[in-house]
Amino acid sequence: MSSSKAQLVAKEQLARLAKAYSNNRPAIQHVLTGGFVAYVLLTTYQGLAARPGGKSSRGGKGKGKGKESDTAPRVAVDAVFYQRLSRILRIVIPSLKSREAILLIMHSSLLVFRTAISLYVASLDGKQFYRIVASIVRAQPLAFFLNILRWLLVAVPATWCNSWLSFVESRLSSAYRTRLTDEVVRSYLDDGEGGGKVYYKISNLDDRIKNPDQMITNDIQRFSAHLAAIYANIAKPVLDVILYNYQLSQNVGAEGLVLLTVLVQTSAALLRKLTPPFGQYTALSASLAGSLRHTHSRLSEHAEEIAFFRGEETEKMLLEREYAGVVMHERRVLRGRWWHGIVEEGIVKWLWGSFGLCICAIPVFFKLPGVSVADLGGRTEGFVTNRRLLLSASDALGRVMYSYKDLSELAGYTARVSLLLDTMADVRRGKLEKALVSSADTEENARILRGKGQVIESDEIRFEGVPIVTPNGDILVKSLSFHVKPGEHLLIVGPNGCGKSSLFRILGGLWPVYGGTVHKPPASQFILIPQRPYLPLGTLRDQVIYPHSKLDMEALGRTDEELLSVLSVVQMDHVVEREGGWDAAKEWRDALSGGDKQKIAWARLFYHRPKYAVLDEATSLVPTEMEGRMMDYATELGITLLTVSHRPSLWRYHSMILQYDGQGGYVFTELDAEKRLALQEEKQALETKLLEVPAMRAKLAELKAVVDAQAL
Amino acid sequence: MSSSKAQLVAKEQLARLAKAYSNNRPAIQHVLTGGFVAYVLLTTYQGLAARPGGKSSRGGKGKGKGKESDTAPRVAVDAVFYQRLSRILRIVIPSLKSREAILLIMHSSLLVFRTAISLYVASLDGKQFYRIVASIVRAQPLAFFLNILRWLLVAVPATWCNSWLSFVESRLSSAYRTRLTDEVVRSYLDDGEGGGKVYYKISNLDDRIKNPDQMITNDIQRFSAHLAAIYANIAKPVLDVILYNYQLSQNVGAEGLVLLTVLVQTSAALLRKLTPPFGQYTALSASLAGSLRHTHSRLSEHAEEIAFFRGEETEKMLLEREYAGVVMHERRVLRGRWWHGIVEEGIVKWLWGSFGLCICAIPVFFKLPGVSVADLGGRTEGFVTNRRLLLSASDALGRVMYSYKDLSELAGYTARVSLLLDTMADVRRGKLEKALVSSADTEENARILRGKGQVIESDEIRFEGVPIVTPNGDILVKSLSFHVKPGEHLLIVGPNGCGKSSLFRILGGLWPVYGGTVHKPPASQFILIPQRPYLPLGTLRDQVIYPHSKLDMEALGRTDEELLSVLSVVQMDHVVEREGGWDAAKEWRDALSGGDKQKIAWARLFYHRPKYAVLDEATSLVPTEMEGRMMDYATELGITLLTVSHRPSLWRYHSMILQYDGQGGYVFTELDAEKRLALQEEKQALETKLLEVPAMRAKLAELKAVVDAQAL
Repeated sequence: MSSSKAQLVAKEQLARLAKAYSNNRPAIQHVLTGGFVAYVLLTTYQGLAARPGGKSSRGGKGKGKGKESDTAPRVAVDAVFYQRLSRILRIVIPSLKSREAILLIMHSSLLVFRTAISLYVASLDGKQFYRIVASIVRAQPLAFFLNILRWLLVAVPATWCNSWLSFVESRLSSAYRTRLTDEVVRSYLDDGEGGGKVYYKISNLDDRIKNPDQMITNDIQRFSAHLAAIYANIAKPVLDVILYNYQLSQNVGAEGLVLLTVLVQTSAALLRKLTPPFGQYTALSASLAGSLRHTHSRLSEHAEEIAFFRGEETEKMLLEREYAGVVMHERRVLRGRWWHGIVEEGIVKWLWGSFGLCICAIPVFFKLPGVSVADLGGRTEGFVTNRRLLLSASDALGRVMYSYKDLSELAGYTARVSLLLDTMADVRRGKLEKALVSSADTEENARILRGKGQVIESDEIRFEGVPIVTPNGDILVKSLSFHVKPGEHLLIVGPNGCGKSSLFRILGGLWPVYGGTVHKPPASQFILIPQRPYLPLGTLRDQVIYPHSKLDMEALGRTDEELLSVLSVVQMDHVVEREGGWDAAKEWRDALSGGDKQKIAWARLFYHRPKYAVLDEATSLVPTEMEGRMMDYATELGITLLTVSHRPSLWRYHSMILQYDGQGGYVFTELDAEKRLALQEEKQALETKLLEVPAMRAKLAELKAVVDAQAL
Repeated sequence: MSSSKAQLVAKEQLARLAKAYSNNRPAIQHVLTGGFVAYVLLTTYQGLAARPGGKSSRGGKGKGKGKESDTAPRVAVDAVFYQRLSRILRIVIPSLKSREAILLIMHSSLLVFRTAISLYVASLDGKQFYRIVASIVRAQPLAFFLNILRWLLVAVPATWCNSWLSFVESRLSSAYRTRLTDEVVRSYLDDGEGGGKVYYKISNLDDRIKNPDQMITNDIQRFSAHLAAIYANIAKPVLDVILYNYQLSQNVGAEGLVLLTVLVQTSAALLRKLTPPFGQYTALSASLAGSLRHTHSRLSEHAEEIAFFRGEETEKMLLEREYAGVVMHERRVLRGRWWHGIVEEGIVKWLWGSFGLCICAIPVFFKLPGVSVADLGGRTEGFVTNRRLLLSASDALGRVMYSYKDLSELAGYTARVSLLLDTMADVRRGKLEKALVSSADTEENARILRGKGQVIESDEIRFEGVPIVTPNGDILVKSLSFHVKPGEHLLIVGPNGCGKSSLFRILGGLWPVYGGTVHKPPASQFILIPQRPYLPLGTLRDQVIYPHSKLDMEALGRTDEELLSVLSVVQMDHVVEREGGWDAAKEWRDALSGGDKQKIAWARLFYHRPKYAVLDEATSLVPTEMEGRMMDYATELGITLLTVSHRPSLWRYHSMILQYDGQGGYVFTELDAEKRLALQEEKQALETKLLEVPAMRAKLAELKAVVDAQAL
């Protein structure tokens, strides 16, 4: 009795509970759905971060990037990344009224619009499909064609939107790139604080960036493309996951979604457990392939020695061992991939697919409070719509998972672009990083490296106790003193690597002064002519007047006739006609011979008439008489020459000599060309004599043999 | 009257015709469908070959490959390609009983099986979908779940088959790679006809292949992967197109297919007409990007000179001009892509989609002879099945179109692998291709280059009128004569590039002899020690006994004690303990200092005891006393030395000297070390004296000033 009463009470309570649930269902629904979507998005990203292969695939590329692994650092998607990114974002989107911001707003609007269309198509597909089927069932051709037409009408905005989206994204990428490139090129080439010349210092005085040209062109481009794409790649699928799931929950009830989540999460956890460590596999693959490649390149490098040793068998054995390692590893990966493929496809495609079908059937089989019961047609329609929504939602979820890969790729490019920006900023501020040679460790050298010299502007050149130090801390000369007065040409000789070019770099203000005092004219009074002079892109006129432009030249009131006369000094006036006039533009580097390039560089010197010219083997490819002519003309123009050359024929043009011994010592003295030439001759005569000694001995032996024979 | 009679006759004839058609419909159907499929496949490929961008995209990569454009030649899919491919196929599939052939058969069977499953799924999807819908409509949960279960059961073979397919494909790729690598490495390292040493000759005497290591590792791997994939990529979609269309024609009648074809072809032709020349755009993009990159790298290269000229503004202008060119071109491409995207999506996705729906409706609306009329359920089922088949067929057609891209990528890799194989075969036969220097053009030099010298085996070395010619035809010495008798060490001196190393290469049999007579022991009697000796991968023991292996050493009855005594001669016996014993394996190149490497190389010389040793600056990094010790020990062992060195300390170990003057002349004579040293001293004394002259002058001037002052 009391039990039946208790039952009655329980029933009543249950009914009240059911009623309360039924009444509040919409609110509960919303909370459930929101929680579900947040949970799904969160676990997706967490799962990615925690998965066995996650770590190594953060760098982004895996196998395909094996070659570039040294250039694209593996970076994590972490606080440092967001900090770097926000700094670059301030460059590429300078204000909310900039073109980039407007493009971004357009892009966002289009994204929302496209999602709205997709939702409409999904619901239409169900309805329309039912209508089309119905018109087939009722054999109504007219209704059928009208329905098709209606379906086609949605195509217009959808297609328009898709095309605009990719257009705006590409424009955005291009705009980012332009902003970044402008910013980088400006500080790369500007003569700013700290003396500028970043383009020189970054490649010569700093170790951090090996190939600035690649970073400024490729890396900035790829970064921009990734940045423009990442927005769509993350925003769109997240938006989709939220919207599709919401709509789905409206149709099938949040309870179904929660059930689905539990099933999917359980099987996903199982799948994660069963996944072999593919990330580690990929890293090992890359390392094995690198090792094989390395063995091959050793073989090429030492081919000559190996050929002498006849080491072919040994090398073959080494190569075969490396190759076997690669193949064995590949097979292991393959086996793992085989059964992982089976499990993954079984779970993701088939098991989840059937879960989905079951979920879609919920509103049909179970009368849910708050969901209206549909008729036969409505049931089919609902089923088709839900299936479509479910497919879209799971597709969107897949894209969210995939976007993590995009994000880590972006992190890689962000790191590279940041490195470029940071290094340039450091170089501008004079903060250079360069590995020092071991000799920089000794106490005396360290003292020199810590020092700072004085640079005083002056009309003549005078070094007083200046150490010559390379950027990597190698001290070539501990204390150098010499002077050049205007009109007194200086010859500089010594073995390679003794500090001849280093001297020029100090004169040109490219290298820091570590001690002593340097009196010198400003860098603008110097011109350098190296052995292989630089010929810029441009016209023939540009070659002679570089770095002036035609406008600069005209502003200075200088004429083509003057240029022609300058060219005639170096006997190059015929090229103007031969190459098709002053405005002929070609790749002059390939069009002119080595000697002609040196002559053009000399013509450039005569055009600019600086106070001092630094000649670094600048006459090595021109005939001796032309060399004399050029030297004399430079003297006439009042240009003082600092010459590095091995040619004795140049001695007579110089009055002073700075001779390095290559061991850190040097002699600075007057150059007595005649005495020097006489000594040279004497030395040669001695050597020739010495070479004759054996011949004389042979003659002697011959004579002796003849005498001996006669004596017999 | 007669007209009604004529009408009657006409009606009768029409009825007869209709009946004949109706009777023969199955046969006509087959012919129509076959023709249709053939036509579709043919026009797809023709369209690809003829499309505006077809030419340039044949190379395969377009933009992404910009960097590699110099290494991956753009090759057409033509007769040459098929010829090359068939040659390589004979290597990778040597016989029908080979493992590769069996894998290929497995692969084909799996492909057919998968297509069969797909077809079954397509038809099942229709039936099952109808059944699932029906069970929903009739509200039969049990039937619904049973149907889901049945649908899941197909999953087992489908998943199994997919995983196996990718497994077999990867194994096939690996098998191809192994065959090719084996073949290539064998002829690369074999001592075959023509003297072998292909690994040396290919990098040093031939111009065709710049980086054999990349070709042997990467290119062969990629070729194999593409070859393994191309089969599935072409065979599978072609098979699919045929099967799906056939089944579709069974359901909707070949007439529908023909109608569909006409519509699709017309709109495709229109689309083709409207497509901008994207291939040309891509090529131009790559060239513009290359030019921008080039301008940047010029800037880095000539940074120093530009800094001296203060050419920053000019360079910035040049860079900005290049960048503007890139951006303007990109915008043009973008505009083209924008409206092309709209047109393409409109036609392909929406227009063709609605065509498809219409086609699927044909059997419902029009009673086709030979096609049974279905009931309501049958109609829905048929419509769903046909839609699915149509989607699969058009997807397969898309893959056929895509496979053309795969084919042209394969053509690119085939060309590279062929180049490797051809060059190796040529090099083995002695057919070398090398660009000659311009000086090879003069008549006398050309005569020398056409000549052929004689090589006679002998115990001593004797050159009689042998020209020293580099592989690029530069004649360093026109006629060289000298001799080395066993025990008479020869010192070789001269400036860089005068022919010292060339002489060794002729001795080692690496370079051809162009004239005169060379008497020399076989190459096995020589060992070369360069300045940076080769240290192979392997144990410490391997470093000393190279190219012997441990087994070789034991077979010769030589022991580790002996090795230790050899190492003690060069004072390197301590490394055995320091590095962890004879079997310690590491990267010795990094583990040992430069001097230690030279000592190890000398130890190797003492272990092998050849008749002659060629020393190319082989003692530059060891102390002088160690150098003497090694020289003496080599003499003790009866090894005759041919030494290139700039160290005067080595003079006294040599009895003969071969001195090049760097201008094509030379002196071969006895080496009088004492006289030579005396001369050296005399020269130095003179130079020192000369440097004192200005100091003396200064002293004189000082004295004079003092005297003058006193005189006042």
